[in-house]
Amino acid sequence: MSAVARLDPTLRRAAREIFQAALDAADPGLAVRRLLRVEDETLNAGRARYDLRRFERVFLVGAGKASALMARAAGRALGERVTGGIINVKDGHGLPLARVECRECGHPVPDERGLDGARRMAELASSATARDLIVCLISGGASALTPLPAPPVTLADKQRTTSLLLAAGADIHQLNTVRKHLSLFKGGRLAALASPATVLTLILSDVIGDDLDVIGSGPTVPDRSTFAGARAVLERFRLWRKVPASVRRRLAEGERGLVPETPKPGDPVFARVRNIIVGSNGLALDAAAARARSLGFRPLILSSTIEGETRDAALVHAAIAREVSDHRRPARRPACLISGGETTVALRGAGLGGRNQEFVLAAAGAIAGLPACLVFSAGTDGTDGPTDAAGAFADGSTLERAAALGMNLYDFLLHNDSYRFFDALGDLLRTGPTRTNVMDIHLVLLG
Amino acid sequence: MSAVARLDPTLRRAAREIFQAALDAADPGLAVRRLLRVEDETLNAGRARYDLRRFERVFLVGAGKASALMARAAGRALGERVTGGIINVKDGHGLPLARVECRECGHPVPDERGLDGARRMAELASSATARDLIVCLISGGASALTPLPAPPVTLADKQRTTSLLLAAGADIHQLNTVRKHLSLFKGGRLAALASPATVLTLILSDVIGDDLDVIGSGPTVPDRSTFAGARAVLERFRLWRKVPASVRRRLAEGERGLVPETPKPGDPVFARVRNIIVGSNGLALDAAAARARSLGFRPLILSSTIEGETRDAALVHAAIAREVSDHRRPARRPACLISGGETTVALRGAGLGGRNQEFVLAAAGAIAGLPACLVFSAGTDGTDGPTDAAGAFADGSTLERAAALGMNLYDFLLHNDSYRFFDALGDLLRTGPTRTNVMDIHLVLLG
Repeated sequence: MSAVARLDPTLRRAAREIFQAALDAADPGLAVRRLLRVEDETLNAGRARYDLRRFERVFLVGAGKASALMARAAGRALGERVTGGIINVKDGHGLPLARVECRECGHPVPDERGLDGARRMAELASSATARDLIVCLISGGASALTPLPAPPVTLADKQRTTSLLLAAGADIHQLNTVRKHLSLFKGGRLAALASPATVLTLILSDVIGDDLDVIGSGPTVPDRSTFAGARAVLERFRLWRKVPASVRRRLAEGERGLVPETPKPGDPVFARVRNIIVGSNGLALDAAAARARSLGFRPLILSSTIEGETRDAALVHAAIAREVSDHRRPARRPACLISGGETTVALRGAGLGGRNQEFVLAAAGAIAGLPACLVFSAGTDGTDGPTDAAGAFADGSTLERAAALGMNLYDFLLHNDSYRFFDALGDLLRTGPTRTNVMDIHLVLLG
Repeated sequence: MSAVARLDPTLRRAAREIFQAALDAADPGLAVRRLLRVEDETLNAGRARYDLRRFERVFLVGAGKASALMARAAGRALGERVTGGIINVKDGHGLPLARVECRECGHPVPDERGLDGARRMAELASSATARDLIVCLISGGASALTPLPAPPVTLADKQRTTSLLLAAGADIHQLNTVRKHLSLFKGGRLAALASPATVLTLILSDVIGDDLDVIGSGPTVPDRSTFAGARAVLERFRLWRKVPASVRRRLAEGERGLVPETPKPGDPVFARVRNIIVGSNGLALDAAAARARSLGFRPLILSSTIEGETRDAALVHAAIAREVSDHRRPARRPACLISGGETTVALRGAGLGGRNQEFVLAAAGAIAGLPACLVFSAGTDGTDGPTDAAGAFADGSTLERAAALGMNLYDFLLHNDSYRFFDALGDLLRTGPTRTNVMDIHLVLLG
């Protein structure tokens, strides 16, 4: 292993380009623009077609951090046909939209502004007829941005219930089972309100596995959970007696059939509803693979649902890289391993970093000495932990280059101090905010 | 998800067959028998050829848990040509060998029996001439089974040094750098003693990455480490003043050139030396892939060097399985993902299990509900942790089947209690001792 002054510049440039292709695929505005095309009064949405002459009115509704950008792109595609609408976004994410009200609301803690916007979306949906089209734009954060508790539950009651469930260790499915049954908006209820109008929901997924009913709690997606299931979750965590009385009352009324269930798969309210994922980690990986191929690499997409402890997920990626290098499998050089998802970091030290930088740091130790091998990881939202970086690069020389600067890679890993490590090496990636989020992208390039 | 009474029997049978193919490839006797063929007085060892008429004497030496089986196979191939030899094996692993002495010795703690056998192998090597062939058979455990400390270092001194290094957190390379420089046998010294004889070393690898100089501390492999490097390791861990005085003296004499260095790459003592890996995790994966293909699966070997925390490595495998199921990549059904290596378990609970059973348990949670998907992991030595099982099977129904028996998968995972979980489900694999070890095999079948 000879001393080298810096990271392999060719592989670094390639990784940056491949990541950029992933970002472009996940861009909320571009994604909607690619999907929606109006020709001869026909709205094409992927393979779906809508005869716009059938509709008297076209509304845009939705919520999420990226939903203003999505609504702007949808508005531009539909032009003068847009009658009106409401979009709830996080504070600071608002945009002026033609004929559509863009409202900034509290996030991640829901507030009255979000509730008011959600109520008006629900009213708009209720008033829609069979001759109306509702284009719904959902992205990460939509759930907190559209609180609409079912009476007698209040916003505070719902928040209290959510907090208790989180503290008890409930997972996202258990949490959503309860929340959907305390809401007039989530779990397909917005679709039920909108029926018999036509609903086209465009979704930017920021969750592992792209479960439609999880993203924004699925306001236009059939729900399989039940009032009885919601009660069972609370009982399982011994919270039935601890949640506000209004929550118990709501769930009990639901179980007795006094208030309607969330609409289930096959329910006629979904007859004119279509949900389309316009952006997701998996679609970003597709774009990354295409760019890698055009740069001369053999792409191999491993998974869009990588999770678990960051450093150990990184070690598996490094092990696959070594296999490519030593045994020409599962791909042959020049190869580009591609994956994505959202790992976690069990904090051990008081260092500065993020899960992407830590991924690269852990992998760097395991690929030390490997020729022409670069590891890259970055958050598609342009941020990684409490740092100004989106991610980092490392190659087979990183361990040695760090040692030449007096840095022991494993000490930095021990203290979760990936930011200072890569900052000293000049191997951070700084993109600034990207205005999208389809989780993280991991790349391993073998030239 | 409908209730099912048991694991998918077709996939279970397929996994068992694929694992058996891996075991057969790693069988020490079969591996040597496949490699060594004598025809017309020519010994074929893979692509290497030896004219047996050139040799007056043929010796078998070696050490390791599987080396008696390897020596027996080599003896059968060479027949009457074997002059004699010595093999050191672990207690209980001895076999009667024609004209070769098979000695049982202490392992993992080296003892005088091992030392005596190593000394006699060294003497035999020293006495060999250019007209002799030495076939050396190395497998896991060889290092502890061939202690031959260089004076004035004693066996106790060497053990004390090893213990200090391990306690200080030294890795295998740092440990070996020191050990090789305290030994008259390791780090290529056996080859130096044997020169100018011809040496053919057959190796069964039980280490990640198959580094020849790591397996059994590489008695016939060039060594890149130095006396100065050994001293630096001790100083780095602040052990230079703590190790026995004999160790300091040996290393200081080496640095001053008073005793010879280990032979380096390119040293003429290796001119007639060949090291061949006859069995390894990677070769076992090849055999597994071939069997998977013959059973109709599309095999994809991910890596033979999987390491890191078991449950997180398992989550990455599960994520790839989901990608196959949801997005038909990186392989299409019917697919068989294949990997191997040796993961670790950070014990959290007081349960019973092993890393293979825990791998399957963690994966089972992450593939819950996935149709026709089976996860399997087992140790090729037939044991997994302090249990009577080699590994376990799970599929998309495992979480639910366990729940039907009142078992919460995540509780068992929390307590490292994989054995009792799979025992209750009847989904353990019990093979008994296999007499080999090429680490672990992980399979994910998607029918």
